[in-house]
Amino acid sequence: MSTKVTQALIVNKAIELFNEFGAHHVSTNRIAEACHLSKGNVHYHFKNKESLIQSIFERMAREIEDGWGDDHLRPTAEHMAKMFYRQLTMIWEYRFFYRELTPLLQNDRLLKKSFAALRKKRMAKLEIFFESLISRGFLVGIDTPEDVSALITISWIISDYWLSYIDVEEKNIDKNTIREGYLIMTQSLRPYLTDDARKKVDESFKLISQIN
Amino acid sequence: MSTKVTQALIVNKAIELFNEFGAHHVSTNRIAEACHLSKGNVHYHFKNKESLIQSIFERMAREIEDGWGDDHLRPTAEHMAKMFYRQLTMIWEYRFFYRELTPLLQNDRLLKKSFAALRKKRMAKLEIFFESLISRGFLVGIDTPEDVSALITISWIISDYWLSYIDVEEKNIDKNTIREGYLIMTQSLRPYLTDDARKKVDESFKLISQIN
Repeated sequence: MSTKVTQALIVNKAIELFNEFGAHHVSTNRIAEACHLSKGNVHYHFKNKESLIQSIFERMAREIEDGWGDDHLRPTAEHMAKMFYRQLTMIWEYRFFYRELTPLLQNDRLLKKSFAALRKKRMAKLEIFFESLISRGFLVGIDTPEDVSALITISWIISDYWLSYIDVEEKNIDKNTIREGYLIMTQSLRPYLTDDARKKVDESFKLISQIN
Repeated sequence: MSTKVTQALIVNKAIELFNEFGAHHVSTNRIAEACHLSKGNVHYHFKNKESLIQSIFERMAREIEDGWGDDHLRPTAEHMAKMFYRQLTMIWEYRFFYRELTPLLQNDRLLKKSFAALRKKRMAKLEIFFESLISRGFLVGIDTPEDVSALITISWIISDYWLSYIDVEEKNIDKNTIREGYLIMTQSLRPYLTDDARKKVDESFKLISQIN
């Protein structure tokens, strides 16, 4: 196998096992075994679990940058709903990451820095996006820039910590959890949505059930 | 010193050091040193850091039960504002706990269980409280029980994870962080508050600056 193929195999298997059992319960040896690779081979590509998790985060960051980079150029209610849907889909795909967000960042200063930098960049774009939604009349009754900022922060906190919150109850995390998260996330914006925007959000909710 | 006095000394010093340096950076040996006690003496009262943190959580839980038990009997806008204020004050007092909530619960299954049980109990009371606020007309425009439940969940997630969220940026956590948290927490309810209720919430905000 080429380096690229081997690394992709390891990363995919790691995500699968981390999602199922939690990153803190899965060793790189177990990942090697599941990949039918030697420990030495996995170690050659990723010197430890931290570097493997960094690599997964880089993949997430690339997906975000590639797919979400020009959101602010399309400030419509429909696109806002798509963004929510896409966000929840990503949380589902990398659920171990969100479920264990604080300990993962606590264990790895480099990861924490990268995560904070990405968040800062995304937040700035999201502010532009929301300002455009307001100026185009899709969001109404948000009076000050501070209110815009507060609303973005609320949806961000819910998005980042929804799975950590759910994990407290030792509930199984499944597609219903993601659907519920979507409702909670959008609830904070609901009072400010026009009827049209609200309809788009509700339509997007139906798509969540199709996550596979 | 009596057992009770010694234990209180250890617990108070632990909270102080955990708040300043993070629980994951402070050993029980360091706490012993700061208390001018032998390691053996501290170990006699708390067999490890986990049992010390459990003891701190029990103190938090007692404060909550003693002080907050009959909130649902006083469903007024003023009391709601007081509750928010009190919640933020507690988060400030035990800020290490909220800052490291996920790893602390991940490290200790017993603590996780106790935390989940307390949350469940408090949530049920909070639902009653909010239903009363609605039926008395302090909160308007919340249409269904699901919406009530979603709004409570939102303010709960913000309350529990605000410091974890802030911690990502490696910002100093101070009273301003708590004031900002109050604004974010109340923002999600703002569209549903009557003018009177909004005034009470704003008055309560001024009190936050007096946290010491």
